[in-house]
Amino acid sequence: SVIETATVEETIEEVRRKSHEIDNISNVFVVDKEGRLAGAVPLDKLILADPETPVITIANRDPIKVRTDMDQEEVAKLFQKYDLISVPVVDHEGRLVGRITVDDIVDVLEEEIFEDFYKMAGLNVEARALDPAGRAIRMRVPWLLLNLCTAALAASVVKLFEGTIEQLVLLAVLMPIVAGMGGNAATQTITVVVRALALGELTFKNARWVLMKEVLVGFVNGCLTGGIAGLAAYLLGANIMVGLLLFLAMIANMMIAGLIGSIMPLVLKRFKVDPAISSSIFVTASTDIGGFFTFLGLATLFMKMGLL
Amino acid sequence: SVIETATVEETIEEVRRKSHEIDNISNVFVVDKEGRLAGAVPLDKLILADPETPVITIANRDPIKVRTDMDQEEVAKLFQKYDLISVPVVDHEGRLVGRITVDDIVDVLEEEIFEDFYKMAGLNVEARALDPAGRAIRMRVPWLLLNLCTAALAASVVKLFEGTIEQLVLLAVLMPIVAGMGGNAATQTITVVVRALALGELTFKNARWVLMKEVLVGFVNGCLTGGIAGLAAYLLGANIMVGLLLFLAMIANMMIAGLIGSIMPLVLKRFKVDPAISSSIFVTASTDIGGFFTFLGLATLFMKMGLL
Repeated sequence: SVIETATVEETIEEVRRKSHEIDNISNVFVVDKEGRLAGAVPLDKLILADPETPVITIANRDPIKVRTDMDQEEVAKLFQKYDLISVPVVDHEGRLVGRITVDDIVDVLEEEIFEDFYKMAGLNVEARALDPAGRAIRMRVPWLLLNLCTAALAASVVKLFEGTIEQLVLLAVLMPIVAGMGGNAATQTITVVVRALALGELTFKNARWVLMKEVLVGFVNGCLTGGIAGLAAYLLGANIMVGLLLFLAMIANMMIAGLIGSIMPLVLKRFKVDPAISSSIFVTASTDIGGFFTFLGLATLFMKMGLL
Repeated sequence: SVIETATVEETIEEVRRKSHEIDNISNVFVVDKEGRLAGAVPLDKLILADPETPVITIANRDPIKVRTDMDQEEVAKLFQKYDLISVPVVDHEGRLVGRITVDDIVDVLEEEIFEDFYKMAGLNVEARALDPAGRAIRMRVPWLLLNLCTAALAASVVKLFEGTIEQLVLLAVLMPIVAGMGGNAATQTITVVVRALALGELTFKNARWVLMKEVLVGFVNGCLTGGIAGLAAYLLGANIMVGLLLFLAMIANMMIAGLIGSIMPLVLKRFKVDPAISSSIFVTASTDIGGFFTFLGLATLFMKMGLL
């Protein structure tokens, strides 16, 4: 940085002195005598100026800057939005305390995206493949315990229909298909939604449209895959009513998947919680429960109606 | 770019002319009379040089460059490795055809990471939350059909043990817990492994260690969560042998999860396939099948031994 009273020639002299210790100089920051940021001059502008000019006259007087307490994700967004190479960092009194260059930001961005990724998988953001076993266990156990609770919830839904399964064990054979397909459809939905929220493409304005669309996509994909599954079950010797049951339950569960997969990240975002947290665990728990409930519930209904 | 016979003064003159159309100039590229890249001069070096010097004498004669046919992911890695601001792009004859700046790279990197993310979720990389329903359906159906095949495979494993379930319907209630916990553990493993492969932290050298560790982590987490699950089943009224069964099957399946979750991306990488493709679908299919097989298989064994 140079003081605002410096000339262009003095500024170039300063760049010369610093060029050995500082990489990738692209902007020279100008400060007032209290050290407060007064402007920024890109190097190419400096070259073109008359050496006698005071540097402050060619400086951008209100350059994009970041505060020391700014979140690194916000800083990264700023770099992306304005295609910046470097920004000055100022403290709460506007004093220049350093700079951030785009190569630091590249790492931050990578970090932030992997964080979303990690949260969706139920992983602590600090976890690494090369962690020792003890550390890996410590970091993964909380999520697995949470998953144990959601799995117990899903199992308790199956438990409700023990009598129904007793009458037709084939239901136990087919129920993982309904739950699994719903889980996969939900993962697809939640991944596009979390990405769109991270990139700011999805707002509360168009959220309703996305939600309706995801339910529609679930319906159509449910008809398609449920149709194939139901038909295959029938052709392989199952009662036609079991085929119909599979078809209907898969449609219902894939609609649930579209609904939960899009609504959960939006609700979390509304409550200022990271939408990526609506991870596999919660969303697939919903589709497990939804799948078991619709499939076994419909089967019970069919039995009561004498259809099965 | 300037011709190699230009002086520093002429080069600065050229920068002046171009500075209105080109953003963020940080390097001037020097070419020979056939247009081949002869060197690069950072702007700060240019400022410091004597105006009469031929620019080629202060240029870096062998700058980092990229070829027109280079993959964007490789280019991004180069920027990260060397903290570059811009690189010249040359064709197969070494002629300068353009430049890539770091702000382009930021977008590429973000894209690449999201791609991994997408592949793991079973999504086409082009899919977006704001796609119309028809496009969303078309893009997701292939993955769902694939998932239908793996789900059918898992169901056929359950089918093998229909007789066992008939004797004890409680098995159908508990089997989703074994499969689901394995699926979640596998997702955790695969996520750290895919990340480590993307960042180059994991190589074939330390792969064996990671693999052994993941199996160990699976064993310990299986003992822990399986112990809780087995005990809970027993306390809720199940036969103690059912509790033991749950405990043993969860240990086995979480070890399978650690093995498959780490081996699958490594094998794919070995065969030059993107490791992220070893997505949720394949890995959770393995843990579904593994979970059903160990749990119901052990139950059958227990029954034959008169323990259940």
